[in-house]
Amino acid sequence: VTDRLAAQLAFLAEADRLKSVLRASTLNDASRRENSAEHSWHVMLYAAVLADQAPPGVDVGRVLRMLLIHDLVEIDVGDTPIHAQGAVSHGSSALLAREQDAADRLFGLLPPDQAAAFRALWDEFEAAQTPDAVYAKSIDRVQPVMQNLASGGGTWVDYGVTRDQLESRVGTKVTRALPRVWAHLAPALDRWFAKA
Amino acid sequence: VTDRLAAQLAFLAEADRLKSVLRASTLNDASRRENSAEHSWHVMLYAAVLADQAPPGVDVGRVLRMLLIHDLVEIDVGDTPIHAQGAVSHGSSALLAREQDAADRLFGLLPPDQAAAFRALWDEFEAAQTPDAVYAKSIDRVQPVMQNLASGGGTWVDYGVTRDQLESRVGTKVTRALPRVWAHLAPALDRWFAKA
Repeated sequence: VTDRLAAQLAFLAEADRLKSVLRASTLNDASRRENSAEHSWHVMLYAAVLADQAPPGVDVGRVLRMLLIHDLVEIDVGDTPIHAQGAVSHGSSALLAREQDAADRLFGLLPPDQAAAFRALWDEFEAAQTPDAVYAKSIDRVQPVMQNLASGGGTWVDYGVTRDQLESRVGTKVTRALPRVWAHLAPALDRWFAKA
Repeated sequence: VTDRLAAQLAFLAEADRLKSVLRASTLNDASRRENSAEHSWHVMLYAAVLADQAPPGVDVGRVLRMLLIHDLVEIDVGDTPIHAQGAVSHGSSALLAREQDAADRLFGLLPPDQAAAFRALWDEFEAAQTPDAVYAKSIDRVQPVMQNLASGGGTWVDYGVTRDQLESRVGTKVTRALPRVWAHLAPALDRWFAKA
């Protein structure tokens, strides 16, 4: 029991570092960049509140657990902004390999049974195939859109994003599980990009 | 549907402000004070990882939802450090009244059915009587202890806390649901306070 508890507490202490991983998006008031720990909390709140928008078959409780751990690998890898087109871009094989190593190290701090369970949940999120993972991914993509609308453009300004790029990089993912949310946001998005 | 979604998104935008509520505790590396949004994420991770320490009858899924919203009232009220002995101290009736007003306003942004469900869950957490609430409270109390141990003392130094005060203000709450965790931490706590 003591060894098990020591491993769990070591993992929880290491997880604290996610609070120092900065994302490209800011808070709604644009006062500073958001970190990946508070982002994780916020998307969990999105998942709970928008539960009645979730497609049939989604288990929101599982989605909450998925979102709780979805960004932990960023402790080693950092956040990769979706609109940044650098050497290591979002979804590239180089990034995926680094994330796998990070998952090995971080979940490996836990007792083996928990390490396996957390890793399976993270793998499911990354694969984005099951209803729970698709809903979780849609939630994870729509929250930064809300932040950008509130803060005056945010990463759309920073990376010179067009309305078409937003649609292909983000809209196609959000609409997989949340078509009505995306349709609801469309007029505000059209207005913002028309002015930009 | 549109009005409902608009209310949900307005609540989620308002919730963003929890990221700007600063707590007395710092990050483990003592680089800055922790905010209540990232703290909420961290205690949810504690609740998930320490689930095998939870007393019989605890539904960890419900506890995650409880911890997800447990600090939202701090958007209006701010964080009240447990070791601060000011005019408005932890658990005072003045503070409780302000928290009730904050809960009315914040949960009231949601559609009525969700407002009622979230409020009932928050009331249950505050009352600290059900197994889920007792476990959630124990988790919420033990995380800052771990932060203080990691950061070199934190709020124990700031507020001149003694080992006895820690035991009465925190230990008695942690041991309600997590006696083995508190026993596990005791040697490290004894060492820290012996040196302080």
